[in-house]
Amino acid sequence: MSALEDLLAFQKDTTALSQIAGRLGWDQETVMPTGAAAQRSEETAAMDSVLHARRSDPRIGEWLAAAGSLDDPVAQAHLREIRRSYERATKLPAKLSAEIARVTSISQGEWAAARAEDNFKAFAPRLTEIVSLKREEAAAVAQDKSAYDALLEDYEPGATAASLAAMFSALRPRLVALRATVLAAQPLEIGTLGQFDEAEQVALATEIAQAFGYDLSRGRIDQAVHPFSSGSGSDVRITTRTDAADPFNCLYSTLHETGHATYEQHVDPKLALTVLGQGASMGVHESQSRIYENQLGRSEAFCGWLHERMRARFGDAVPDSKKVFYARVNQVHPGFIRTEADEVHYNLHVLLRFDLERALIAGDLQVSDLEAAWNDRFRADFGQAVDKPSNGCLQDVHWAVGLFGYFPTYSIGNLYAGCLYEALKRDIPALDDHLAAGDPSPALMWLADKVQRHGAVIEPEALITQATGKAPAAEPLLSYLEAKFGALYGL
Amino acid sequence: MSALEDLLAFQKDTTALSQIAGRLGWDQETVMPTGAAAQRSEETAAMDSVLHARRSDPRIGEWLAAAGSLDDPVAQAHLREIRRSYERATKLPAKLSAEIARVTSISQGEWAAARAEDNFKAFAPRLTEIVSLKREEAAAVAQDKSAYDALLEDYEPGATAASLAAMFSALRPRLVALRATVLAAQPLEIGTLGQFDEAEQVALATEIAQAFGYDLSRGRIDQAVHPFSSGSGSDVRITTRTDAADPFNCLYSTLHETGHATYEQHVDPKLALTVLGQGASMGVHESQSRIYENQLGRSEAFCGWLHERMRARFGDAVPDSKKVFYARVNQVHPGFIRTEADEVHYNLHVLLRFDLERALIAGDLQVSDLEAAWNDRFRADFGQAVDKPSNGCLQDVHWAVGLFGYFPTYSIGNLYAGCLYEALKRDIPALDDHLAAGDPSPALMWLADKVQRHGAVIEPEALITQATGKAPAAEPLLSYLEAKFGALYGL
Repeated sequence: MSALEDLLAFQKDTTALSQIAGRLGWDQETVMPTGAAAQRSEETAAMDSVLHARRSDPRIGEWLAAAGSLDDPVAQAHLREIRRSYERATKLPAKLSAEIARVTSISQGEWAAARAEDNFKAFAPRLTEIVSLKREEAAAVAQDKSAYDALLEDYEPGATAASLAAMFSALRPRLVALRATVLAAQPLEIGTLGQFDEAEQVALATEIAQAFGYDLSRGRIDQAVHPFSSGSGSDVRITTRTDAADPFNCLYSTLHETGHATYEQHVDPKLALTVLGQGASMGVHESQSRIYENQLGRSEAFCGWLHERMRARFGDAVPDSKKVFYARVNQVHPGFIRTEADEVHYNLHVLLRFDLERALIAGDLQVSDLEAAWNDRFRADFGQAVDKPSNGCLQDVHWAVGLFGYFPTYSIGNLYAGCLYEALKRDIPALDDHLAAGDPSPALMWLADKVQRHGAVIEPEALITQATGKAPAAEPLLSYLEAKFGALYGL
Repeated sequence: MSALEDLLAFQKDTTALSQIAGRLGWDQETVMPTGAAAQRSEETAAMDSVLHARRSDPRIGEWLAAAGSLDDPVAQAHLREIRRSYERATKLPAKLSAEIARVTSISQGEWAAARAEDNFKAFAPRLTEIVSLKREEAAAVAQDKSAYDALLEDYEPGATAASLAAMFSALRPRLVALRATVLAAQPLEIGTLGQFDEAEQVALATEIAQAFGYDLSRGRIDQAVHPFSSGSGSDVRITTRTDAADPFNCLYSTLHETGHATYEQHVDPKLALTVLGQGASMGVHESQSRIYENQLGRSEAFCGWLHERMRARFGDAVPDSKKVFYARVNQVHPGFIRTEADEVHYNLHVLLRFDLERALIAGDLQVSDLEAAWNDRFRADFGQAVDKPSNGCLQDVHWAVGLFGYFPTYSIGNLYAGCLYEALKRDIPALDDHLAAGDPSPALMWLADKVQRHGAVIEPEALITQATGKAPAAEPLLSYLEAKFGALYGL
């Protein structure tokens, strides 16, 4: 066998093992008995150490050196991604990696307790330790990058804080202006909702997931505290949750996860169990989940179809008027919580976190000053004072488990979704007619062809550029939001 | 760290990984999407190769040598079981192990197809290949043992064909005589059954499992094609199945698996994630599942309680008479299928397989002659001619997947259950009063104390000897069966 063949055979087993590790996470969130948590953390640690040892196996370095440079672009992409993973794994000391795993495993519970007590000070010492460990990790893997870019690279290959800040710079002022205008306009009539049988909600969500291409012979839908998507290849599972008073939580979180899951399901099967057999990055992943959920799922055209389906299933629990229904689904409402934010507010939440976490990692902001910095920024962008830490800097788990550099991928995803939607409308002029008939398939085929089937062969920015014909930018998302909410609020 | 500490730390991760591998099997049988089978076989193979590499890691040999001999009996037991696993893993060539895994993975589907077509000849060439591979495995690991004993050792440490044949020799003639007498007696009145809601069956089965000590905070019950128990420590799961026309299938298979699961749950938590933190052998495991299911669960005392519970839940779908109900649960009926056999017939099925598989592995019986040999023996023991291979030598999957040496552990389990029940009745004279009140807890505490808490610290035969005060033998089981069915059939 050639060095490349040896390398790919070794990588195949590593990828298969990482699928198992991922499924262990699914199991933990959906079916694991509550009393199994301590044993599970031992199992997870054992699996992590097997994976870390494989990812930093010295033979990978030898195979990479022997493979040399190759003409075939897919082979090149294999080498690129394996090299990226290998260099990171070998640079990160096993002891530091284990320490981060240990501390962030403990800290998740401490964060939950501090959030429940609305006591940021109680959590600040631990968060200080985590920031310090992540700075140490960044320094170890940075090469010629800044500390923050080194962390970002783990979630969004090729992105830098500078390039993101340039793309995002247009977002903040126009979103702040849009929200102010919308909130000053005449409030929408959104009617009232009744109660919704939770099994019926899941049945409808399943129907919609399937209409959006989710293949249940290679996936499944379960209930969990947080909606998520898990797995690649032919075993990609999602979760949802229900609230009897709010069916849109279940429906739109399912549609969001369906975007993630069908992305994985549409990757070229030839790439299965390779390092390329998955989404290109967290940002591109989020672009698929958001375009399914928002640009397609919350469009006026699709809401018309959904309204009929919900009236048929739930009767008068749903407002009679299509217009009121569409307003209910898209209503802009100020709020503290990112995960409950509408399309106008969402990216303002993310940009706040992006700026603060860069300052934390750079050492320009101390954890002891984080709460005040958060609250100042929130008042500036959202025009409201944060009333308690659980509505402020303690609301998200990300930092508590060491995810620095992760938040911006949400806005990258939204921004990419804006670019893709602009190109999609251009290429499929009758898109709204299809959506009004409950048929997203032309849009899905376009996304599968332009984005999803490529897996991680093409790097994120190049992939979006190739799909849309232009470099990613904020303008398409802003134009879409201003047009949509301008029309909805009669601005 | 000492060599022993190093060895135990290494073994802890191996045990944790083997728990993950086991849970992957649970996932496959209960929740895996149908389209994920091919990917799953790659994942399983990758996990197997990680485990094989760890089990044969040369450092284990060094640690074992450096640890020397120890006074502490638990430390001795650790070394004993780790040495057993290491010697087997290092003696078995990786290539042969992979070939057996590959062939028995293919053969499972071929066996199912041959069984569906009732065509033994179609499967005989593959079975010949499997017998040959298992003989090769046996030769590789045998040391000073016979080939069959080498295979048996994998399921029942310390057992030999000769010692089992001596224990079993009393079983066959008295069971053949008992079945003949019972079948010649006046048939029992067993009434008729109605239809049973399947969700209600599972609810009652769950209630019974909990009454028999199954802790659902460290376990769960799902539905699957075949009932099984999976996992050790704080995550031990069972499955059941339902048949609207036969609630006893669900109830007694759940009670059987509850015996397996509570055994694992009652192992001393100090042994968790060690090689001793699980049942002592397949035979001891089966002794627990069978005593829960039969000696306790099918007793006249417990059937009285169950009758009331079922009348309350299912009304007239259950016969009104306690006597008729007890007869229905314990009726002796001739049949071809082992898994459907009553207590009188069950071991005759197993002994047939034990004798035939010993002859196959010894080379005294050729696969081409297996069907005729099976049918001759069946006619001799059961007084009936086998009508088709699916009712004969194609009924069980075991041989098709290479499980030679496994069948006798079923009868070892029955025989041990007989010994334990005799001691249990001696130590708890009011056992039947407790069972009649639906309270098995005195029996469960006795089993937990005498057997279950010890995990694999004490070897099987010594464990039963210590628990009962005498060496295991067939007499207690035979006396129990002759007394129970003599009374039931008025012999």
